[in-house]
Amino acid sequence: MQVTPVVRTLARSLETPFLLMDLSYVRNNYYDIINHVNNVRVFYAVKANSHPRIVSLLNTLGSSFDVASRGEIDKLLSLNITPDRMSFGNTIKKIEDIKYAHSVGVEYFAADSEMEIEKIAAHAPGSKVYVRIMTTGSDSDWPLSKKFGTDVEHVISILRYADNLGLDAYGVSFHVGSQNYNVANWEKAIIEAAKVFKVLRTEGINLRMINLGGGMPVKHIKEIPSVKEIGDVINRAIERELSFVPNLEVFIEPGRSMVGNAGILVSQVILRSRKGNEDWVYADAGVFHGLTETIENFRYEIIVDGKQDDKKEIFTLAGPSCDSIDTIYEKVELPKTIGYGDILYFINAGAYTTEYATNFNGIKAPGVYFVEDFTLAESEFFQDEKGFEQDL
Amino acid sequence: MQVTPVVRTLARSLETPFLLMDLSYVRNNYYDIINHVNNVRVFYAVKANSHPRIVSLLNTLGSSFDVASRGEIDKLLSLNITPDRMSFGNTIKKIEDIKYAHSVGVEYFAADSEMEIEKIAAHAPGSKVYVRIMTTGSDSDWPLSKKFGTDVEHVISILRYADNLGLDAYGVSFHVGSQNYNVANWEKAIIEAAKVFKVLRTEGINLRMINLGGGMPVKHIKEIPSVKEIGDVINRAIERELSFVPNLEVFIEPGRSMVGNAGILVSQVILRSRKGNEDWVYADAGVFHGLTETIENFRYEIIVDGKQDDKKEIFTLAGPSCDSIDTIYEKVELPKTIGYGDILYFINAGAYTTEYATNFNGIKAPGVYFVEDFTLAESEFFQDEKGFEQDL
Repeated sequence: MQVTPVVRTLARSLETPFLLMDLSYVRNNYYDIINHVNNVRVFYAVKANSHPRIVSLLNTLGSSFDVASRGEIDKLLSLNITPDRMSFGNTIKKIEDIKYAHSVGVEYFAADSEMEIEKIAAHAPGSKVYVRIMTTGSDSDWPLSKKFGTDVEHVISILRYADNLGLDAYGVSFHVGSQNYNVANWEKAIIEAAKVFKVLRTEGINLRMINLGGGMPVKHIKEIPSVKEIGDVINRAIERELSFVPNLEVFIEPGRSMVGNAGILVSQVILRSRKGNEDWVYADAGVFHGLTETIENFRYEIIVDGKQDDKKEIFTLAGPSCDSIDTIYEKVELPKTIGYGDILYFINAGAYTTEYATNFNGIKAPGVYFVEDFTLAESEFFQDEKGFEQDL
Repeated sequence: MQVTPVVRTLARSLETPFLLMDLSYVRNNYYDIINHVNNVRVFYAVKANSHPRIVSLLNTLGSSFDVASRGEIDKLLSLNITPDRMSFGNTIKKIEDIKYAHSVGVEYFAADSEMEIEKIAAHAPGSKVYVRIMTTGSDSDWPLSKKFGTDVEHVISILRYADNLGLDAYGVSFHVGSQNYNVANWEKAIIEAAKVFKVLRTEGINLRMINLGGGMPVKHIKEIPSVKEIGDVINRAIERELSFVPNLEVFIEPGRSMVGNAGILVSQVILRSRKGNEDWVYADAGVFHGLTETIENFRYEIIVDGKQDDKKEIFTLAGPSCDSIDTIYEKVELPKTIGYGDILYFINAGAYTTEYATNFNGIKAPGVYFVEDFTLAESEFFQDEKGFEQDL
């Protein structure tokens, strides 16, 4: 998302920090995916940004939703999203939540362990289950490999177990790791997934779905492959590896790639100081107030309003709270002249920012605004002006 | 705080995860500090646990408060705490918040940089300022050294600058780092602080206050020095280094040590699985839902209800959310027989747990309960029973 004149005006008029979203990017991202991945059904990963306006727009566009908890299911139901559009994608579920999801009509459930299958079989009998393959998460900024998924042999045995317990052994999922830069990783994962289909087919268990997970990257400081490039790899790999599956369903769970480039986190410099040989800049957004992903050194592009062309220096950039872990970057290039009140734009910060934000230190989590509202207001303003002139 | 029968009953009846607090510990901690540190004035660090019941109890006991933001000031004002009991201890403040604090009557302001002094001089003229010395944070679990404070020479020059700008150069603060195990660190810091007093005295700037910060430890898995041991060291060091200061004021800002041992975070096992050679246990509390400090490997004592004496094994313990950073401990000893529904008690988790908690993944932050309410309910219940018997 670009720093447009509207963004610059809002940065000076709204209380910082705040997340400014532009829904037209979300719309484009949705179509980008369905236009480039063949026959795909999109399940938006609600956790990336669960704002009702984003969820409602995607619902209107025809998206389905990957939900992680009862809380997310309830939120979606309150927005009139029907349960046939939801997939319970968290592999770690409370029994009460499985029961609840089943009772309202959710049909798809993820798992990566025998115990989870037992819970689903007992409390959501007959449901469609898909089991997650572990990937290495290599070439990704935020690998998800350690906690989720398991090896191919284990996935096969878990799906076999699901079938034995009367569940509908439905498919295989994977996740190449959040913000993955290497298209080859999708191909590798599809090859692994296809092994599961093939082995189970010989036993009469006919899987029908491959779930590509998330991981498509958003542009920050490194070049990224386009959705088309990733889609081409996915389409070729599925065609080659899984053409034996009649009417294969293809699910995808974009989170970051659906909303990341649709937002800018706007913050303000509230202190600059020198300690020993180090120059420090403190912003009113931080690790507990919108920039949580930076604790693992996730790198945003930062634009300092009006100072892009100034000479740069190395600074330590920290957040506003009384906690030393609230240090955004230990070393980051910022304009030499940076000072109190300068506006910082964290570009493409629409995903995983407000969702992780806290009210720690009595400092409010960033508000969320939509640029559409102000653009509208501006045109209304001009209309009024015109009307006013006409009255004269 | 002990796992008493009431705690065990509540663990089975309230929805997990939740933080159970016992205010009698807070009361004892308050008296422990004022009984062992001579002439001390306690400013409770609200950020550790800002629950209104805790703040109100401490107000009743006579405590003052270290506040970090306008949000905390407003919260305290709404609890009828007067601004003379507040110190704005965050060294990173927005101008609007300085103005606001000054307008409502807050008198004490912290700083560690020239710019902060300029902001305070311009927007809270004449205020009492104290400047923070940087410590190494050695021997502490959660060092605060890098982001806050500056070296002694710099502290001297900042206080001189404050005096020049018409502020009341009031004192020196330090923080030995959160959860510090070595009593000698308080002595070292007092020696450094005394240097500041001495140099400025020769220039006619007579500081009157030393702020000992926080850092007193709470018992987790390592032995800790008692408040008396720390107090003895502080008292001797102040007596020796600062006896030349007439009517020296001594401030202290306990946060963790005021509330840490007054709480237990109660969680439940919601999944156990085996991946490769690793055994995983997933709880319904996690890094985003109460156990944030574990991301820097902060170690809680964990008791598994009814299984303390079982044979132990090494597990990876993770939280409930769809995020791999939500892994509590990569290696932790837990009972071999641990399984779904087992209750986990994270002992002495009253500080920095609910304050950092999010609603990420649509999973609610832990609720907070007070054991007093249930003890009362229980005694009322028994009274009712008795009354019932008498009626018969």
